[in-house]
Parts: sequence; C-alpha cells; structure tokens
Amino acid sequence: MDIKQFSVGQTASMSKTVTEYDVYAFAGITGDFNPAHVNEAYAATTSFKKRIAHGMLSAGFVSAVLGTKLPGAGSIYAGQTMKFLAPVYIGDTITAIVTVKEIIEERRRLILTTEVVNQEGVTVFTGEADIFIPKD
Amino acid sequence: MDIKQFSVGQTASMSKTVTEYDVYAFAGITGDFNPAHVNEAYAATTSFKKRIAHGMLSAGFVSAVLGTKLPGAGSIYAGQTMKFLAPVYIGDTITAIVTVKEIIEERRRLILTTEVVNQEGVTVFTGEADIFIPKD
Amino acid sequence: MDIKQFSVGQTASMSKTVTEYDVYAFAGITGDFNPAHVNEAYAATTSFKKRIAHGMLSAGFVSAVLGTKLPGAGSIYAGQTMKFLAPVYIGDTITAIVTVKEIIEERRRLILTTEVVNQEGVTVFTGEADIFIPKD
Amino acid sequence: MDIKQFSVGQTASMSKTVTEYDVYAFAGITGDFNPAHVNEAYAATTSFKKRIAHGMLSAGFVSAVLGTKLPGAGSIYAGQTMKFLAPVYIGDTITAIVTVKEIIEERRRLILTTEVVNQEGVTVFTGEADIFIPKD
Repeated sequence: MDIKQFSVGQTASMSKTVTEYDVYAFAGITGDFNPAHVNEAYAATTSFKKRIAHGMLSAGFVSAVLGTKLPGAGSIYAGQTMKFLAPVYIGDTITAIVTVKEIIEERRRLILTTEVVNQEGVTVFTGEADIFIPKD
Repeated sequence: MDIKQFSVGQTASMSKTVTEYDVYAFAGITGDFNPAHVNEAYAATTSFKKRIAHGMLSAGFVSAVLGTKLPGAGSIYAGQTMKFLAPVYIGDTITAIVTVKEIIEERRRLILTTEVVNQEGVTVFTGEADIFIPKD
Repeated sequence: MDIKQFSVGQTASMSKTVTEYDVYAFAGITGDFNPAHVNEAYAATTSFKKRIAHGMLSAGFVSAVLGTKLPGAGSIYAGQTMKFLAPVYIGDTITAIVTVKEIIEERRRLILTTEVVNQEGVTVFTGEADIFIPKD
Repeated sequence: MDIKQFSVGQTASMSKTVTEYDVYAFAGITGDFNPAHVNEAYAATTSFKKRIAHGMLSAGFVSAVLGTKLPGAGSIYAGQTMKFLAPVYIGDTITAIVTVKEIIEERRRLILTTEVVNQEGVTVFTGEADIFIPKD
C-alpha cells in the first residue's frame, strides 16, 4: 500500500441497526454470556434496564471500517484504545467513524481517531487505532 | 458487587480453538470482510500467508472472561487498550487471561492486565481493561 | 432422474415467515450490508419506510423448492430469470411456488415458472427456472 | 441518487473464499437442503463429486456488490437474469463483478452485466441486473 495516498482528516464510516441476532451471535462466538447481554430478566434489575450490546461489538464495527474502507484491505491492526461511554441497546442504529489523525511515514503508521455514535447523536465509544501500512 | 472481594494478582481465563466458523460469523456480524480474514487466495499473497482471525475476536474472548468470570456479571466495561502482537490463524487454540493489577476502591474501579496467548505460548495480544464495579 | 416422471402443471411450494435473523444472517454470509436491509434509521427515510429482505433471499426460497421438492435432489440449476415486484418486509410470511411449464425431453431440461407471494396474496417475485435433469 | 454519476463501463467487485459455514448457513436460512449442498456421501455419487455451493449464494455476492458498491445504497433491485455455468466448490475463492452496460436515464434504470469467476479464472455465473435509481 502507498502510505502517501492518505491525508489527515480523511474519514470513513459504516452504520448498522444492532439486533438481538447480532448480540446473540457475538455471544455465541466469544462465549461472552454476561447476563447484561443475554439475560433480559437480569438486565431489568441493572441501571441499564435492558440488555445491552457487547462493547467489543461496537469495536468490531470500528474494525470493519478500518479493514474494508480506511485504510482498507492490506492494512494491519497494531493497536487500539477504547472508552465505552454509553450503552448500545438492541435496536439502536450505530455509526462507526474513523478519521486519519496522524501519518507517521517513516514508521509506515497511521493513527486514526475512532468513534461510534447512536441514532440520537450520542457518542457511545471513542478511541484511537494504530495501523501499520505494509509496503506491498 | 462488593469491590472488596477482589485482590491484586487474582486471575481467570478461557480457551477456544478459533475456527473458520468463528471468523466467518464474526465477519458476518460486523461486516468486516477484510480479505485478510475471508479470502484465502488474497491471504496467500500477504506476509501472513493464510487467513487470520480478526483482532477484535481475540478482544472478544478477553471481554468474555471479564464479563463472566473476573470481575464477572454486573461489572461494567469502561475502557480497554490493546496491542496486536502476532496473528491468530484459523485452527489456533488461544487462551485469554485477565489479572487484577490495581483496585481503585474510592472510584470503584478495577484495572486488569489482559493477554491472549496461542497454543505455542506466543503472546498475540496484550492490553489493559478498566472496569467499573457498580454498588448493586 | 427419469425426466418422464414430470408433467406440465405439476407444482410445489414452501413458506416461511422472514425474520430479522434471516435478513441479518443473509447479510452476514454475502456481505450485502445495504442499509435498506440492516439500517432501520436509513430505511425510515426510503419509500419502503422499513428494512426489507434481500431479493436474493426470496430467490433462495425458490431455489429451495427446486432443489428439494420439484424437480428435487439431483436436478442441476442451469439458469433463472427474476423480477422483484414488491418489497418483502421483516415479519412477512412468503410462499415460493414453482410450476412445471415446459419439458424439453431431448435436452433433458425442465422450464418452471417461479413465483413468491406474501401473506396478503401480493406477488413479490416472478421468474422462470431452467433446470437440467441428469441421467443418473 | 443522481443517475448522471454513473458511466458505461464502470465496474466494482468483491471476493470471498466460500466455506462450509457459508453453504450451511445459507441452507439453514433458505431451507435448501438439496443433498448436492449438504450431503457429502450423496455428492460423491454425482458428476460434481463434492458438495457444491448454492447457485443463489453466488447470486447473493452479486447482490452485495450492487447494493453496497455499484450502484450502491439506495438503488432498488428490479430484476436479474442468471446462468450457472460451472460449480462452486467449498473452498473456492470467487469474485463477483458488476459492470454498467447501459444507462436508461428517462426510466432511471441501469443495466449491469454480472459475472462470478473462481480462483482459476473460470466463469461460474453470468447474467444481467436491472436496477432502478430512485430520485432521492
């Protein structure tokens, strides 16, 4: 990949309505059967009142944008920081947005801010991705 | 949850052999159809030579340990840092390990180191989790 | 297969209520994350108002009837034409119907009309299938 | 959508290695349990010798390109013709390619050729898509 094709401020995103299917399939793959995600009776007793999506599912959408749009196929995930700021409920429509923050040409690295917002404009996730851009 | 039940050094883990099913279903939920994960012909041309699992799938196993074992049900994910150090191939058996590093009682926070190792003992993922322990 | 077992006018069908699971899993296999299918906020802005099923999911039900009932196991799909006439919404119950239209014995071919109707009798899909009937 | 943004010859594609997971999940959604797809013992007795993917799965990849890349989100599937020319085996890496063939501006229609090729360059699927481009 040519690291010169990227510019600071460049952005890409994807959106999806998060469904029970997404949450249950994610639980089934990872084994994360935390009752906050898959137990409605339990969730009703928590401060969130309803089952919430796994934080790492939001992170998965961020990864999807990084791996398929910006920087896209061929880029290698080196690191990610993340803060989970608000719950994502089943039925929420969320948008994962990545934006190039810094280009470290000599180390072939891109630093991108990563954010996930819900249908009401609330930021549910923020963080930074560190991506390696291989020569070929 | 009683934050006094936790102690520094306490540890928990889970293991799974990562299969094609896991990788394809993860791609299907998140939309991360990066060819590194779902295109064997493409992967053969990369430095990894074979399809690799999504980094966020490893992160999902870390999340599973945090949400079901230590600190367990009721804990709330506030943040996570992660470095991806080596690829996870389809067929690898990985173990996600979390260890209590610091207990910040007045803020009801636990800091845990998080690590994923493969069947050869290679560390593929390191990071730190920041978990909130609610009163109820 | 004995092509003489078929007769013009012979018919077979199957029905299914199309769920969010079906649409999301279909998106997950094919990568068709068109927001018309997986983004409720977006869909609300379209003429359809709600998320609709993939047209190829209806085609998949047609294929199921052809491959399991008429002509059934052993038949080989050579071609299909299709028109998508009306949307299929999540929650609709649709019926895929195939009917033998023409038997071309010397080329071992069956031409079948194919139709999908919803629970209100609205035709959502029409087309024609071209099926090869092998000797064994 | 602005139909003037498209030009004859414009093209887009996606690739995926088709796995057992894809074929079985597709069977599970559509009910197409034709033994050619899900019965290895049966498949060994056919001219294909091995289980093959559903033709409509290849069609699903074509739909994915149409709905997410070209013409992309907002376009409406009006019709498709398809010929299945060669089998897709589990393990094959296939590429779905769509190319604008004709722009019928007054009817807001795009005609696109659609093709699926395998890793050896063999064309397994050809056809034509008829897409409606709504004003908004």
